[in-house]
This record gives sequence, C-alpha cells and structure tokens, in this order.
Amino acid sequence: MPGNSFGELFRVTTFGESHGPVIGAIIDGCPAGLALSEADLQADLDRRKPGQSRYTTARREADEVKILSGVFDGVTTGTPIALLIENTDQRSKDYSAIKDLYRPGHADFTYDKKYGRRDYRGGGRSSARETAMRVAAGAIAKKLLQQQFGVQFYAGVMQIGPHEIGRNGDGFDWAQTRENALFMPDAEVAEAAAQYLKDLLKEGDSVGARVRLEVTGVPAGLGEPVFDRFDADLAKALMSINAVKAVSVGDGFAVAAQKGSEHRDEMSPEGFLSNHAGGVLGGISSGQTVIAEVAFKPTSSITKPGQTVDRWNQPQTVVTRGRHDPCVGIRGVPIVEAMAALVIVDHWLRQRAQNGS
Amino acid sequence: MPGNSFGELFRVTTFGESHGPVIGAIIDGCPAGLALSEADLQADLDRRKPGQSRYTTARREADEVKILSGVFDGVTTGTPIALLIENTDQRSKDYSAIKDLYRPGHADFTYDKKYGRRDYRGGGRSSARETAMRVAAGAIAKKLLQQQFGVQFYAGVMQIGPHEIGRNGDGFDWAQTRENALFMPDAEVAEAAAQYLKDLLKEGDSVGARVRLEVTGVPAGLGEPVFDRFDADLAKALMSINAVKAVSVGDGFAVAAQKGSEHRDEMSPEGFLSNHAGGVLGGISSGQTVIAEVAFKPTSSITKPGQTVDRWNQPQTVVTRGRHDPCVGIRGVPIVEAMAALVIVDHWLRQRAQNGS
Amino acid sequence: MPGNSFGELFRVTTFGESHGPVIGAIIDGCPAGLALSEADLQADLDRRKPGQSRYTTARREADEVKILSGVFDGVTTGTPIALLIENTDQRSKDYSAIKDLYRPGHADFTYDKKYGRRDYRGGGRSSARETAMRVAAGAIAKKLLQQQFGVQFYAGVMQIGPHEIGRNGDGFDWAQTRENALFMPDAEVAEAAAQYLKDLLKEGDSVGARVRLEVTGVPAGLGEPVFDRFDADLAKALMSINAVKAVSVGDGFAVAAQKGSEHRDEMSPEGFLSNHAGGVLGGISSGQTVIAEVAFKPTSSITKPGQTVDRWNQPQTVVTRGRHDPCVGIRGVPIVEAMAALVIVDHWLRQRAQNGS
Amino acid sequence: MPGNSFGELFRVTTFGESHGPVIGAIIDGCPAGLALSEADLQADLDRRKPGQSRYTTARREADEVKILSGVFDGVTTGTPIALLIENTDQRSKDYSAIKDLYRPGHADFTYDKKYGRRDYRGGGRSSARETAMRVAAGAIAKKLLQQQFGVQFYAGVMQIGPHEIGRNGDGFDWAQTRENALFMPDAEVAEAAAQYLKDLLKEGDSVGARVRLEVTGVPAGLGEPVFDRFDADLAKALMSINAVKAVSVGDGFAVAAQKGSEHRDEMSPEGFLSNHAGGVLGGISSGQTVIAEVAFKPTSSITKPGQTVDRWNQPQTVVTRGRHDPCVGIRGVPIVEAMAALVIVDHWLRQRAQNGS
Repeated sequence: MPGNSFGELFRVTTFGESHGPVIGAIIDGCPAGLALSEADLQADLDRRKPGQSRYTTARREADEVKILSGVFDGVTTGTPIALLIENTDQRSKDYSAIKDLYRPGHADFTYDKKYGRRDYRGGGRSSARETAMRVAAGAIAKKLLQQQFGVQFYAGVMQIGPHEIGRNGDGFDWAQTRENALFMPDAEVAEAAAQYLKDLLKEGDSVGARVRLEVTGVPAGLGEPVFDRFDADLAKALMSINAVKAVSVGDGFAVAAQKGSEHRDEMSPEGFLSNHAGGVLGGISSGQTVIAEVAFKPTSSITKPGQTVDRWNQPQTVVTRGRHDPCVGIRGVPIVEAMAALVIVDHWLRQRAQNGS
Repeated sequence: MPGNSFGELFRVTTFGESHGPVIGAIIDGCPAGLALSEADLQADLDRRKPGQSRYTTARREADEVKILSGVFDGVTTGTPIALLIENTDQRSKDYSAIKDLYRPGHADFTYDKKYGRRDYRGGGRSSARETAMRVAAGAIAKKLLQQQFGVQFYAGVMQIGPHEIGRNGDGFDWAQTRENALFMPDAEVAEAAAQYLKDLLKEGDSVGARVRLEVTGVPAGLGEPVFDRFDADLAKALMSINAVKAVSVGDGFAVAAQKGSEHRDEMSPEGFLSNHAGGVLGGISSGQTVIAEVAFKPTSSITKPGQTVDRWNQPQTVVTRGRHDPCVGIRGVPIVEAMAALVIVDHWLRQRAQNGS
Repeated sequence: MPGNSFGELFRVTTFGESHGPVIGAIIDGCPAGLALSEADLQADLDRRKPGQSRYTTARREADEVKILSGVFDGVTTGTPIALLIENTDQRSKDYSAIKDLYRPGHADFTYDKKYGRRDYRGGGRSSARETAMRVAAGAIAKKLLQQQFGVQFYAGVMQIGPHEIGRNGDGFDWAQTRENALFMPDAEVAEAAAQYLKDLLKEGDSVGARVRLEVTGVPAGLGEPVFDRFDADLAKALMSINAVKAVSVGDGFAVAAQKGSEHRDEMSPEGFLSNHAGGVLGGISSGQTVIAEVAFKPTSSITKPGQTVDRWNQPQTVVTRGRHDPCVGIRGVPIVEAMAALVIVDHWLRQRAQNGS
Repeated sequence: MPGNSFGELFRVTTFGESHGPVIGAIIDGCPAGLALSEADLQADLDRRKPGQSRYTTARREADEVKILSGVFDGVTTGTPIALLIENTDQRSKDYSAIKDLYRPGHADFTYDKKYGRRDYRGGGRSSARETAMRVAAGAIAKKLLQQQFGVQFYAGVMQIGPHEIGRNGDGFDWAQTRENALFMPDAEVAEAAAQYLKDLLKEGDSVGARVRLEVTGVPAGLGEPVFDRFDADLAKALMSINAVKAVSVGDGFAVAAQKGSEHRDEMSPEGFLSNHAGGVLGGISSGQTVIAEVAFKPTSSITKPGQTVDRWNQPQTVVTRGRHDPCVGIRGVPIVEAMAALVIVDHWLRQRAQNGS
C-alpha cells in the first residue's frame, strides 16, 4: 500500500502540497448516520491554523474546509467523505535559491534520493501543511467517539526547551491549555516559555517541545495483538507527525528504572489503583485513561546560516528566510489529538467487526 | 486486517500460544533466490532462547525451528515460507490458581474484555514466547539485507534499573554485547547490573531496561510519506514488542530541549556532519546509521504479592510463581533487531516497486 | 479496508456522487518521473463521456479533469495525484418521486439496507458517474504501461441483444471500434445494432451487451498466486464495474465443453501455438495477449412501468424518466480498458518489488 | 500485500507445496467464541479429497487436518487458528523428466518467468493440493454463517463436456449432488457423464466442467462499493481457484441478450418477483439467494503427447504420467463453496464494523 493512507477501517488518505492549489483528504469507512458539517471540523483546524499568535508562522491561511462528498442532508451516508482546503497564501515567491539545495534537517535530500526529484516550493509534500487534513479528519473521528463513548481528548505542551512543567499531585490543568498561546497546562511556565520564544525569534533560532496527551473514555478491548496493538498503532500514528522523534505510553522511558512491584498497576473492585501502563495492557486498551507523550524536534527552518550541499554535492550555506514557527510543537497539539482519535476510532471499528459491539 | 501480520510486501504472520503444541510463522513475500536453511535462523533464536543464563527464565526450550515450505533445493522459491517451533517445555502444571484471576500488569484483564475468554496457560497468545517467531522471521530479513546492502545490526542493553551506560566519544563497544549475558556494550556496567539482578531475584522483583539499536548500511530513500514513514513503521514495530513502553529515534526526547541550530545535521561534500536525526529525515532514510531506543517495562511476573480482582470482581492476592525473567529487556535485544530488520526489508521492497532498484 | 480503493501499490481511491458538486480520485503509488498533464486523461474520458451519440444518455457533462497534486513541472513526483471533475449538469430536478421508492434493478434497496439511508439524487454514489474517475486513473496506468512495455489495449462491444459479432479467422477489426458510435469491431453488425437500439429507445426499453478486451505487450510473470492471481484480480476489477454480471478469461465458459488435448496451449521454440488460456497460466501472465470478456446487464432505468415497493413496503409503480443509456455496455468499453490497466500496472509494481525489474 | 492471503477481516493465508512435508493455513480474524474441532472441517475436506472415486486422482491422501492454535477448551479464542495437513502420499518418484520442461497448460513456464525457479515436484505451489486448505478454512466460515444467519450452500456440477443439465421449473435437485460421484444435481445426466469420463480416461484425455453455486440466507447489506463489491470479491475468490476461467453472477453472460424490462427483478410487498440479479444489486447483497457459476478448464495433465519446450527453448514432447483427475471441476465443488463462504463471512464482518450488527 502506498504511504498516504492511515487506518484499516476508518481510512484517511491525504493529498496536496504546501504550495499547490489545494490540500485535501478522503475519509473512507466513516459509518453512516453521523450528523456532520464543516463547522464540526473548523474548531480544531483553527487551533492548528498558522498565524494565530506571534509564536507561530505568519503564513495566513483561512484553512476553511469544504466537504465535497459523503454527506447528504447533513448526515454521513457511509460513502467516502472528501475534504478540501484551498491554499490561499502560497506566496509566489522565488524559490530558485533553494531549488537545488538540501536544507539541513529537512526532507530535501531524502525526497530527492527517493523520488529523483521534488517539489521544492515550501517543502512540497513534506511540509507540515499536510497535517491540516489530519486535524480535519481527526475531528470527524472525535465526534464519532464523543457520541459513542463520551471520549475526551486533553493535550498540551509540557516542555519548550528548558521550560518544563512538573507533575503536580492532581494531574494537569488542561483548561489552561486553551488560555495561553502555547497550549501549556500551566500559566506560569507558559509565560516563561513565551519570553524564551521571543528571545529565540530574535536569535533566528528554534526549539523543540514535548507534548502530552490524555484520552478519557476509551473503552476496554481495543487493539489487535500481536502486531496491531493499540499502543503500536498509536506509536506509528504519532511518529508519523512531522518533526516527532519519540513516543511514549504511560511511564515511557522511566520504566527502564522501575521495578515490577512499582510499575504493575494493581487492581481492586473499584478499579485500577494506578496508571503506569497508560491505559494499555498487552496491546489492548484497559479502559483507563490513555496517556502518551511525544517529542517534537526544533524546526530546521531558521535564519542562522547552516552548512550544506547542493544536488551536485557542492558545499553551500543556507539561510531559511520566510515564515516559520519557532516551536512547531505548539501547533502540534491538535495534530497529536487528531492522530490519536484516528487510532481509537479505527480500533473501535475493528473490535466491532469481531464482537458486534 | 486482523492484527497478527506485519509488513506490506515482506509479510510475517505469527500464530501459536505459550502452552499450545507449537508456535509458528508464515513469511509471504520473501523474494525468490535466497539461499536459506534452518541454520540461518538458529543463531538469533539462540540469543533469544530462554534458559541461557541465570538472568533469564529457567524454562527450557530447544527452540529448534523447522522450515516447512517455500524453500526448494536450499533456495527460496518466492512462495510462502512456513516456520514451526515445537513447544517442548510447556509444563503441564496446574493453572487453576490464575484461571479466573487478572494478574496485575498482564494482559489477562484486557484479553478477557476483548475476547470474552482467554487461554490462561502461561499467558496464551499474549506470552512473549510468540516473539521467537519474530526473531526467526527477522533472521531471514537480515540475511536479505546483508546480501543486498551489507546492512549490519548492533543492539544492546543500555540501562537496567539504576545501571546506565554513558556515551563515550567513540560510540559503543558493540562487540562487548556478545561477551556478557546481559548484552550490554560495557563490561563494567554489565557486571554491576548483573549483581543488581541477583539481588533482585532474591527480592522476588523485576526491573525495566533500555535497549539501543544501531543499523548501518541502510540505503537512503526508504520510507513512504506521509503515514508509512520509515520512523513511523519502526516505532510501530518496536512498540509492538511485548513490554515496550517507549520508542525514540535519533536524539529522541532530548530534542525537546534542543535548538534548531543544534539539532539540524549539517552536510558537507563528505556527508552529514552529525546524526541527531538518527538516520531519518522527513520519514525517509538518509543513508546514515539508523538509531533507535526502546524502553522495556519490568515484568509483572514477580513473587511479591499483589492486589487484584478475579472475573467476578472480587479482591484477590496474586503471586506469580514459575519461571520468569527478572529483566525481559535482556532477551528483548534480538527481538528489537528482528523487528527493525522486518521494517527495513519491507520498505526496501516498497521502494523497489516504485523505482525498480 | 473500506471499499472505495483499488490496487495494492498503484492505489486508486474514488469519491463523489452523481449529483454532488464533484467527483474525484486519488492515485497513490504512481512512480515519480512520468510526464503527465490533463490532456493525457482527456481522450479516454471523452470516449466514456455522456451525450456523445444518440445511444448514450443526454446528460451533458464536460468531464474536464483537473490534476490538483502530485505533478510538478509537468512530471509526477511520487506523491498522491488528486483528480477532480466538476458535475456541471446535475439538474436540480425534483427527486421526491423516487425518494422513498426502490427502483427495481437498482441499488436503492440494497444501499438502504446497508447504510440505513441513501443519496437518492441520480443514484448518488451507486451511479455509473463514478466510473469517470476510473477512466481517468486508468489513463495514467495506460501511459505508464505504454512507456514501460508498449502495452496496447483493444476493446469493443461484441454483442448487443441479438446482434453478435462472430469471430473471423484473423481476429477482430479493432480500428473499426473508433469508427462507429457503438464501439463495435464490425461495421455491419454495428449498423444493425444501431437500428435495434433506435427501436428500443422508442419502446422505452434497454438491452445488455458483451464487451471483449485484448491487451498486448503484457510481460510474463505478473500475478501473485495463490489468491492475488492476475486473472483473479482482473475478474474483481471487471466485476466491480457497474452492471457487469460475468467475466471470462481466454475461452471462458466454453472450456466446460473442451478436452484437455484441445485446450492446452502447446509451445514451440517460436512461442505458444494457440491462446485458449487468454494469456494467464497458474494465475501468472504468460506474455501472450490477455483476453477477457464481460457482460453488461441492461440498465433498469427504462420508461416501461415496473412494480416495486417503497420504504414502508407498500406496492408502487415506477417509471424512470430522465436521461439514460439504452445500452450501458457501450460506454463501458473505456471503463473495461481502464480497470484492466489498473490491474496490470499494480501487478507490474508488485512484481518489481520482488525481483527488481 | 503478497498473494497468499484472502480476506480483509477474516483473513486466510495458506502455505505449502504439493510434495513438501505439509500444507497449512492460518485463519486470522475468526471471532472468539465459536465451538470448533477438527471434525467440523473434515466433512468438507473429505468431499474434496483425492481418491474417492474412479473419476478423481488415485493419489491417496488422508487429508486429516490438525488445529494447532487459536482454539482453547474447544472454543475459538480470537487468536490465529493454524491448520496443518501432512502430505502422506508424496511419492518420491523421479521428477527429472519434467524438471526442465514446461508442460503446456501448466504454470511451469509462468512460475519460472516470475520467480526464476520452481519446485517442479507435482507442480509445487501451483498444485491444486493447496485448495485443501481453502476447504478447511471455508468450513470454519460456513459454521460461523450457519450459526449466525442459517446460511446454506448448494453447489454441483452442471456440465461435463457435452453433458449438461437443463434447468427445470423448480430449481435443481441439490440433494442428488450427494448421491453421485460427480456431484451433479441430476442422476440421469450424471450417469451419462460418468460413462463419458470412463471413455475419456481410456483416451488419456480430460474435460472441462461448469459448476453452479447457490447460497441461501445471506443477509442483505453485504458488500463494499465501489470496488469491494460483494460480486467483485466473489468473482475474485472464484477466479482464484485453480483451473477456473470464467465466473458469472445471476443470469451471467445471458444478460447481454436481455432487455431491461426482462432483467430487472421487480418487487412486491412479498419480496422480489424474480432473481436475474443473483442476489446482488449495486454490489451489495439483496437478501435473495446468491447465484454464481464458474467454468473449470480441462486439466492439461493428460497422457496424450503434447508439444512444448524446455528451459533452453528446445522443442520437446511431454506426456503426463501419474495420477490425475479427468475432470478437475468435480473436486472443485467444495472449493467453490469454501471460497464463497470466505467472501460472505468477510463481508459480514466488514458490515458489522460499520453498523454494529
């Protein structure tokens, strides 16, 4: 199977390049009978949209999505749902400067090696612009899950460079993620991180981030051992997001230092007594809160000059002018939610195939 | 697709339970013309085999693999290769004690929720015994990759509880991983960790581990954006291994604290000047060494009593007697290599479909 | 996998309804480096286009296709190719008459049973309008095959009701299929059939047809036993076309009366001495001309009144007014070619994955 | 995906060669909770088994199937079901005579072209011996469908060479198919055909056959437009059977001569008034009896000498000695049923994923 589709039964295929006329997606497998309109998708799209704060790229995109098929009289029909967003701010600037250059840290070199050519305008297909369609598709998945099980998604930025949120005893202040432009669940850290980003922008540099996801209401029983485990598919989904370099579930890398007596989540008639596992046991959801974290690398689109080579392997210096996020992890928050939603809805349908509920 | 297969073009399907008569696998899609015999698989199987040291379970399994199809006159024919291992030490002990119990940290609860029943003998299908077939299949993938590109796999345990290997300037001493029973690339740390494990066994507890993988010789151009990225499929492959809770590529979670000027791997006519990316850019292999790390949780099979419930949600105390690894990450080393090999060979075939080489 | 995609490696996904704003397709897996423009697709689209003669529906559609992604500087990039056609003549007529009726011989009843609702405007998703996208996608496949192997497609209508073309000694006059509006490879039979259709239109009835396909230049070795045989995938592809009720390869149903000594195609150093097999042996292409035939049922959209029921199972009489083909098999010719092209190109890529050429 | 698997959610993968030690299959995706033992599979296997009458090959195979996994305490667990049959009568005869020959009408030539080599012992993987596993897997599908919906399968040989069964007014005498060795639903025709076969055996020749399938109890709503239609997947399933050259649904090729007013199945409050469609409308099952027919070619394994070439393209004469069926369509009957069962169960699970019932 070519690589531009995700999901076995709720299948999302995306297309389009950063500076082509449109980006789009087809969702095949959405059950019939879901009330659906563009408005259902727009809220999440707006959270991912560029140009929303000084900490995100100044590219101005309305990101207004259109539903072209699969919905009739306001309700899904079971046929493929096509989504389209026009690229409105694809500035016809001159890309000749980077046409034959491999920008370090970008996909320029690898796309060229793979395909023998590339659409160099704004990164072409490798641009994170594609993730808008993931967010749109994910919004449909979220609506299904909300209606079916009351599933809720909480996600936020936990770390930006040196600014990290410690865990307090009562969990994180998820409501706060809607209050600050950095989507951080801690107002104080968000403020410090904001100042840090301002300085970084002056330097012409960027920084990485860590994003945390918590999903409540996921029913027990989702996941298909031994390869299509719930956590394995979640790992793939999250690692497939541009710039993500690490994925963890539950206690993540910390488990390397834990003892079994410490890690195992004991059970009582009232339920699990802890959640080190992050809601997955043996690759199957346990009904506990699903917990995952991902690390976003700092974007390589910075104005600090860097060494590289061109297509003829000649040494070159590259400076990325243009409009870029200093911390791509921020806009990554709704994408993380979306990809998790796609995994959950897909595994729900797979489970329903097997046991009819 | 049900969940017991991995790979698009080099497709591995495994079957069998811990205490059934056999475990097995079918490899469909292996190119014709590869010289192959059981001996090619046995070396890796022996590294994973239980009972090899005091740090692994005392279960005695010969793990002798048979090739039942797909090879004729010592050479693969392009038809499915079936592999079979008999379970020889499936002690007919009495499992009635845990028959209706959900052992904390195990898949007992979730399998029951998913399927409405479970084979409780030794964990049934959720047992890590299944991973023997991954190692066997991975060995075929390795042989193909070795012949085609000279790909080499290096993996070892970097951390067991508090005992962690620091990075030296010249990389790790991979040869050392064959010298100590813990597969650690540092003799001194291995010795300390061994003593730690001895104490742990007396306590009746277990511990987690971190495993590192480096693969050299992977050609540039593997990986199918935007979802079936090389690193996304690697993340899935590794997260699908029993007990794995986190996966990272290149600098992993450390990227959250890095700046773009620090992270991006600059290029010169002689090649990349660093490898923070871990051999993947934009989801496509770059030709650099592929670097990944995973965390194994501590097994929950310990003799320290734990609280749990039974199928009727009555409180119970569970103690896991029997034969178990104090640190499942150790035997995880060849499994990590095998899963990576399956990803690489699959993406190589996918790439070859597109460009014919 | 949901049902709106075809192909494993050259994967076509279509979307859109008869009376929605657009129909479209994504082709994922098209190799990079193919020169491609809208003009390459238009010729085949024009052959399928409605309103080309009095023997096809009077619906007027420009069927002008746009390429929205995947092509840069006139050449495919290896990323998904999105195609779009606007529906221009989706007359906003009143569909309330058939809104709750199950037209006999149509998908009204089964769509309702499957999805619990349906887009009743012009058949919605079940309309043959969708096949325009198959023709567009097939044109890309054809161009690839033409360039790679010189593959040529010949197809025509062999039978319309009682008017049937007998086989002459030297094969069929394929050039003639471009000379008459019925795409028949025999001018005389075409004329008689045309008169027959004129009468039929007056009666308000329709008729079935048989279409024959011959493909030359298909290399030997395509097809993946034992299930994804070349002929099995061809059968699926052709049976998936609206109104097709039968598919045969080579001598087809006539083999039931043949003896082995008669059927087997003997070989000489100059090649095969006959082609009863239709170019496929053991599910793998032999390098001979691929021969297949399909039967199209007569459309049920006729003005002769028919008995049926409505959603409340009340008896009703239905008359299909509007614009319809008296013989849908005619416009089926380019669709048959397109589906065969998709099968061949897909199996070529699958074969190339295995042996690199 | 390699070609040795069938089905999306109820996935069957087969392996093994005619003269290897075993043939086998994995069924992945069988719902948990089905009571299952070897006896459930044996009845159908015995119908396909060689050596049951003078009209089938004299090869003696017990064809005793073993269930190696996926069943615990007599009930399926939801994990993969592995099936194995030992090849007991793989006579170690000398195959050197055909080692380098391409037997006309066999897969020898095409396997060599595809894979560059072949297992020439008894046809290797291309042997119809593989279909025993289809029958075994199909028996599981049948049991599921019988329990869930009361689905019943009726199949028989309608034509052997010149001996053809005409349709009587009341359908066919399916009970009779269990009374004669040719599985024909007409005792008289069966007797004449039997005599014909006896003469044919003396001649050293073989003959084709037509097989009809009727399935009752298939619920409405199965099939996934627009490509994975119920009839399209059925066509693929049936065409994937060794020696099948044509597949039809409902009235099949006869529709080319029908008028719309004649073909469309009108409806009344009591149901459909006819079944020209064969139980499928718009690619979705209608709840009517599913009707399909297939044509089996005459086997090319005959003792009449035939011209061919060897691997070095030198002219040769070939005579197939050994044990062969004079009419492979006879033993094809249970295989046709099995493949249809696999299609139905797979589409049932796909439908259940979408609407939960």
